[in-house]
Amino acid sequence: MTSTQLDQLCINTLRTLSIDAVQQAHSGHPGTPMGAAPTAYCLWQNFLRFDPAAPNWINRDRFVLSAGHACALLYSLLHLCGVKADSASYSTEDRLNQRLAVTLDDLKTFRQLGSRCTGHPESGWTSGVETTTGPLGQGAATSVGMAMAERWLAASYNRPDFDLFSYNVYALCSDGDMMEGITSEAASLAGHLKLSGLCWVYDANRISIEGATALTFTEEVATRFSAYGWQVLQIDNANDLTALRDGYQRFLASTDRPTLIIVRSHIGYGAPHKQDSSNAHGEPLGAEEVRLTKEFYGCDPDAQFDVPDGVIAHFSSQFGQRGATARADWTALFAGYRSQYPDLAEQLAQMQRRDLPRGWDDALPDFAADAKGLSTRDASSQVLNAIAAQMPWLLGGSADLAPSTKTHLTFDFAGDFQPPGDDPKTSYRGRNMHFGVREHAMCAIGSGLSLSYLRPYVSSFLIFTDYCRGALRLAAMMELPLIAIWTHDSISLGEDGPTHQPIEQLASLRAMPGMIVLRPADANEVVAAWRVIMQLTDKPVCLVLTRQALPTLDRASCASADGVAYGAYVLADAVDGKPDVLLLATGSEVALCMAAYEKLTADGIRARVISMPSWELFDSQSQDYRDQIMPPTVIARVAVEQASVFGWERYTGLTGAIIGMRSFGLSAPAAVVTQHFGFESAHVVAAAREQLTRQLPNQS
Amino acid sequence: MTSTQLDQLCINTLRTLSIDAVQQAHSGHPGTPMGAAPTAYCLWQNFLRFDPAAPNWINRDRFVLSAGHACALLYSLLHLCGVKADSASYSTEDRLNQRLAVTLDDLKTFRQLGSRCTGHPESGWTSGVETTTGPLGQGAATSVGMAMAERWLAASYNRPDFDLFSYNVYALCSDGDMMEGITSEAASLAGHLKLSGLCWVYDANRISIEGATALTFTEEVATRFSAYGWQVLQIDNANDLTALRDGYQRFLASTDRPTLIIVRSHIGYGAPHKQDSSNAHGEPLGAEEVRLTKEFYGCDPDAQFDVPDGVIAHFSSQFGQRGATARADWTALFAGYRSQYPDLAEQLAQMQRRDLPRGWDDALPDFAADAKGLSTRDASSQVLNAIAAQMPWLLGGSADLAPSTKTHLTFDFAGDFQPPGDDPKTSYRGRNMHFGVREHAMCAIGSGLSLSYLRPYVSSFLIFTDYCRGALRLAAMMELPLIAIWTHDSISLGEDGPTHQPIEQLASLRAMPGMIVLRPADANEVVAAWRVIMQLTDKPVCLVLTRQALPTLDRASCASADGVAYGAYVLADAVDGKPDVLLLATGSEVALCMAAYEKLTADGIRARVISMPSWELFDSQSQDYRDQIMPPTVIARVAVEQASVFGWERYTGLTGAIIGMRSFGLSAPAAVVTQHFGFESAHVVAAAREQLTRQLPNQS
Repeated sequence: MTSTQLDQLCINTLRTLSIDAVQQAHSGHPGTPMGAAPTAYCLWQNFLRFDPAAPNWINRDRFVLSAGHACALLYSLLHLCGVKADSASYSTEDRLNQRLAVTLDDLKTFRQLGSRCTGHPESGWTSGVETTTGPLGQGAATSVGMAMAERWLAASYNRPDFDLFSYNVYALCSDGDMMEGITSEAASLAGHLKLSGLCWVYDANRISIEGATALTFTEEVATRFSAYGWQVLQIDNANDLTALRDGYQRFLASTDRPTLIIVRSHIGYGAPHKQDSSNAHGEPLGAEEVRLTKEFYGCDPDAQFDVPDGVIAHFSSQFGQRGATARADWTALFAGYRSQYPDLAEQLAQMQRRDLPRGWDDALPDFAADAKGLSTRDASSQVLNAIAAQMPWLLGGSADLAPSTKTHLTFDFAGDFQPPGDDPKTSYRGRNMHFGVREHAMCAIGSGLSLSYLRPYVSSFLIFTDYCRGALRLAAMMELPLIAIWTHDSISLGEDGPTHQPIEQLASLRAMPGMIVLRPADANEVVAAWRVIMQLTDKPVCLVLTRQALPTLDRASCASADGVAYGAYVLADAVDGKPDVLLLATGSEVALCMAAYEKLTADGIRARVISMPSWELFDSQSQDYRDQIMPPTVIARVAVEQASVFGWERYTGLTGAIIGMRSFGLSAPAAVVTQHFGFESAHVVAAAREQLTRQLPNQS
Repeated sequence: MTSTQLDQLCINTLRTLSIDAVQQAHSGHPGTPMGAAPTAYCLWQNFLRFDPAAPNWINRDRFVLSAGHACALLYSLLHLCGVKADSASYSTEDRLNQRLAVTLDDLKTFRQLGSRCTGHPESGWTSGVETTTGPLGQGAATSVGMAMAERWLAASYNRPDFDLFSYNVYALCSDGDMMEGITSEAASLAGHLKLSGLCWVYDANRISIEGATALTFTEEVATRFSAYGWQVLQIDNANDLTALRDGYQRFLASTDRPTLIIVRSHIGYGAPHKQDSSNAHGEPLGAEEVRLTKEFYGCDPDAQFDVPDGVIAHFSSQFGQRGATARADWTALFAGYRSQYPDLAEQLAQMQRRDLPRGWDDALPDFAADAKGLSTRDASSQVLNAIAAQMPWLLGGSADLAPSTKTHLTFDFAGDFQPPGDDPKTSYRGRNMHFGVREHAMCAIGSGLSLSYLRPYVSSFLIFTDYCRGALRLAAMMELPLIAIWTHDSISLGEDGPTHQPIEQLASLRAMPGMIVLRPADANEVVAAWRVIMQLTDKPVCLVLTRQALPTLDRASCASADGVAYGAYVLADAVDGKPDVLLLATGSEVALCMAAYEKLTADGIRARVISMPSWELFDSQSQDYRDQIMPPTVIARVAVEQASVFGWERYTGLTGAIIGMRSFGLSAPAAVVTQHFGFESAHVVAAAREQLTRQLPNQS
C-alpha cells in the first residue's frame, strides 16, 4: 500500500473502531469521530510530539479533546498509537507490563463499568487523556492554561542551549464549544497573551442537537477569533489531508499568536442516511447503517473492531517514532541540564511529584493576639507571599479583583505574566496572572496549569463561584490541587448588597464531591489552613476569606490553631470538659461564639466552642475524634454562620438551633446588616439557653 | 441658559449627585457615573421613550444598567427625571401620592438600610430599575431577553394600524461586561436573531480593578461584534453630545441587526488626581478631590446634593414630555385596539397581572397506573404542551437539548422563534426558542422575558445548572416566575458518566434562597408539579426530571398526587397510621421506597413512605402539617435520593440513614450504576431495619 492508502486505512479504522464501540455499547456519539477522524489523524500522525511509551513526559505536546463526546475517536487513537498505561489508576503490574492505555477490550467495553473507555474522557483514569472533558468549553479553556504553563516553564527553566520546554497544545473543539461563554473568555485571554503554542482545531460540522447550527449560531467565528488576536485558517474539507497538513504547518510557523484552524467537516461522514444529521450525534448508527457506512469506507461490513494489517505499524513508524525520538533527545538534553543546573532540575522533579520545596514554610507568620485584628484576606495575603517566595512554581491571580482578594505577589521578583514587551517586570516568567473579568475561564485555566504540574491559585469574590462551578467541578473530579481563594465571604461585605453577598455558595461548594472548603476564623487559622492546603496533592480547595477585620484570638487562653488540620476542634471548653451545649461556628462567626461563650460561662453554663473551618476535613476524621469533639450525648447545639443554614443540620440534628441566613442579604454597612440578621452574641446566648431548656426533659 | 448649557448642567448634576451619594455613604463607585453621565444623559433626554408617571408601561423603552456598580448614575437619573414610585415595594400611600421612585433623601441614604438606593440596582425594589444587576454580564444578557420579548409581542399582538409594541431596549455596559462569557453568548444570539430593537452602549473607560484593561483585554471588541452580526458604532469622546446623538439616531435607523455603540470615556472624569485610574472605580473620591472635581465642572464646590435651578425642568420638558406624550398616544391606540380585538387586549392584561387564562388546565393529562411507566421528562412534555396550547404567552426552549429535555412545543401553531425568513413556520411569533449551547445567557434571557410579562421556560440537563447559577440566582432575587426544566437528573442517566451525572446540583439549588425545586416521582406528580408551577407568580422553579422511565404509581392503592402542592405528603402508610420508620424520597427513588415499603409491611414493620418533591414547599407548611407528615417522635428515618446526601440531615437528624451519593458517579448503563451505588430496595429495607434496631433503646 502507498502511504496515502495507509493514511486512509488508518483514518477509516479510527472511524470504524469508534462506530463499533458506540454500536456495541448501544450508547455514545459516533458522528463527530467519523467526521473529525482525518483532522485528528493528520495531527497525531504528522505533528503531535508524544512518546506512546511515556504519556506523562513533561515536554509532550498536549492534545485536548474539548469535544469530549467524541471520546471514541480519542480512545481509538490511543489504542492504535500504542499509548501505554502510565498513571496510578492502572495496577502496578499493568504498568510494568506496559499495558496499553486503551486495549481493544476497553474499546469493546466502551461505557461499561470499569472500562478505560468511559462515556467522556477522564483524566487520571485513562493515560493519554490530558484533561476531563464533556461539558462544553472546558477543554478549550483548560488548554489555554496548559499553553500558559508551557510559556511559563520555558521562560523560567529554559537556558541557552537548553530548550527544555517547547511543547504545543492542541484542542479539538466542536460547534458547541464555540458557543459557550467560557470558550470566548479563554480565547480572548489567549489572544491577549499571544500564546503561539496554542492551536484550536474547530471541527465545524454545523450540526448541533436541535439541528443545523444555522438555527442559532450564524456568527462569523473566523472574524471573532481574528478580533481576539488569533491567526485563523480555514479548511473547506476535513478529508483533505494536504490542506490539513498545510494548516498545522502554518500553525507551527506562527510565533506571535494562537491559531484557530476551522475545518469544515460532516458529522456522521459516510453514513448514507445519517451524515449531516443531528441523528448522527448522540446515538448508535444502527446495525444496518453501520454495514452501509463500512461499505462506503471500503471496509469489510461484517468485521467488527477490525484493525487491518499495517495500521498499527503505520502509526508506529510515524507517530511513535517521532515521539520516541523526541523524548530520547529531550532526555539527553535534560541530563546535560541536570548537571549544569542541578537546582533547577531538582525543582522540576519536585514539581512533577507535587512535592513541596524544603523550607516552604520557613517564613510563615505567627500572629499575636489582637482584639482589632485583621481580615482573613489580609492574613492570607501575607501567608501566600511567604510561601510563594519559597516556591517558584506557586503562581496565579484573580479575575480582576486582586486588589480586593489580596492575592497579588508583592515580592520583587514575582513579576506579571504577560507576553514579553518593553517592561522588564512583565514576561512569561511573571507569576502574577491577570485573568480579566473571566471567572469561568480562570478556573479552567487553573486546572490547565495544575495538569501541567504547576501549583496555581485563582481568586475572586465568593459570590462569583456561581460563575465558575463547571470548571471547579472538573478540578474536583480530576483531583487537582487547585487553590481557589474566595474573599468577601458573607453578608459582612456590607454595602454592595445582595447581588454580591454570598448566601448559598458555602453550602453549594461543601456539597461538591472532592472539594475541600476552608473558612478560617482568624489570622492564625489562616496560617494553619495554608499548611493544610499546601500539603494537599489530590484535592482542590476553596479558601473562604473575609473582607472585614476579625480579632486575632488569644491562643494562650484558647486552643492552638493547629486543630484546623482536623477540620473542627475545640477552641474553648467547659471547665470540666463536659459541656452541656455546643456552639459551632466557622470563620467570622467564631469570635461571636467566643463572646457568647464568655457570657454563658460567667452565667455558670457549661458551653463548648467548636471552630470548624472545614466540614470535609472533619467528616474524614475517625468516629472517635468526631465524637470527642461533638459528643453524641450533647444534643443542645447552636450553629452560627453568616450563610445559608442549608446543611448545618448534619451537626445540629433535628432539634439544634441554627443562626444563619434564610434569605438574600441587604445593602447597608456591614455592622447594620449583621445586626439586622441577628448575628449578635446575645442571640447566640439566647439560643443556647433555649436549647438547654428544650433538652431538659430528656436529661431528667 | 442655552439648551447646550442646560444639557451640560444636567450632566454635571448627574455627576455631582452620584459623587455626593458615594461620598456620603463612604462606599460605592463614583468613577463610571462621572465618565458615563453624558452617554446616559443623551439617551434619556433625547431618545428614551419612558413616561416617568408610569414606569411599568408595557411599551416603554427599557434602560438596563448592566454596569450595575454605576447605580448612583441611574438613581440620579430616576430622581432628576421625576420617575414615580409604581411598584408593590412602595407603600400604597406613597404610590397614591406619586412619590418619586428615588427621592433626594434616598440619594442621601445611598447604600443604607431601607434606602431605595441600594448598593446595586434592585428590580422590584426601586421603580425604574428594569432588572437587578451588579454581577457583570447579567444585565446585558437579560436585555437580550427583553428585546426578544418585544419582537414576540409585536409579532403576536400588533395588528394593521395598531403598532402596540415598538419599544427599544438599551443596555449600558462596562469593560467588565464585555469580558464575561455570558455577554458573548447573549451577543451571539442577539446577532443571529437580528434584534434591531437592541442597543448596547459600551462605556469603554479602559480601566478595570487591577488597572488598565490593556493588562488583559486587548481584543478588538468592534470586530468581535461585527462578527456577531451587529452594527458597530464608535464614538471617540463621551463628552461629545453631537456624536452620541448621531450614534443613537443611527441605531434607531437600523432595522436589521442590533447595535453596539462603543463610547470612549474616562473613568472619574474631571477628578484631577483620580481620572483614568482604577482608584476612581470602587471607592469615594475623598472630600478634597470632590471639591476639586466640582470646581472642574464649574459647580459650587461647597454644595452637596445640589440640584441647580432648571435641571429638573429641562428633564421634564424633553424626557418627561416625550414619554408622557408617547404613553398618551399609546393609551388611545390601545383603547381602539381593545374595542377591535377584545380577546387580545384581555390576554395582554392577564399577562401583565401574571394571571392564568381560563381553561389553562383543561387538557391536563391523567396518567393510568403503569408498572413500566414513562420518564418524567416525557410526562412533562405532555403537560407542557397541554398548557401551552391554552396559554399563548407560555414559551421558551432549551440550550440545544430540546430533543432530550422534551421541551419542544409540538402543536401546529407553535412555530420557531426566528427572524422572519422564507419558512412561514419561523418568525418572531414562534414560541420554540433555540438558545444554542449557551446556558448562562439562556437563563438571563429567561429573566428578560419574564420581566417583559411573558411566561418563559428554559431547559437543559440538570448538570448544566452549574453553568448558569449566576442568572438563576438573580431570577430568584427578582422573584420572577421563571420555569427552569432540568432533565437527566441523576446518575441514572447512565453511560454519559460523571461529567454529566448531577450529584451536588440538587443540594445547590435547594440552598438558593427563593428558588423552588420540584422533583416529581411519577407522571401524575409531574402533572401536580405543573399545577404548582403555573400558579407561582413570584418565584422561579427548577423542575427536575428523569431521563429514564419511572413506573406510574397506582394511586388507587396510595395517596393522590395532589400532595405535591404541600411539598411532601404521605404516599403509603402503616396500617394504623402509626409508623415506626419513615422512608423519605424524591423523584425516581420514591418507587424504590414503595418497593421497600411493601417488603417491610409484609414483614410486619410499620413503615411510612413520604414523597417529598419539594423541600421548599414542605418547609413553608405549618408546623402542624410538617409534624403530621414527619412525627417528631419517629426518629427512625431513611432518606433515599440519587444525589449528594448533603442537606438531608434536615429530615433524618443526627441518627437517620441517608442512601445517597458521596462521590461523583460512573460511566455505565443506568442499571449498573444504580446497583453499584446501592440504590436497591434491599438496601432501603436493611437501612430501615437497622434504624429500628438503633432506636429500640430509646423506645424501651
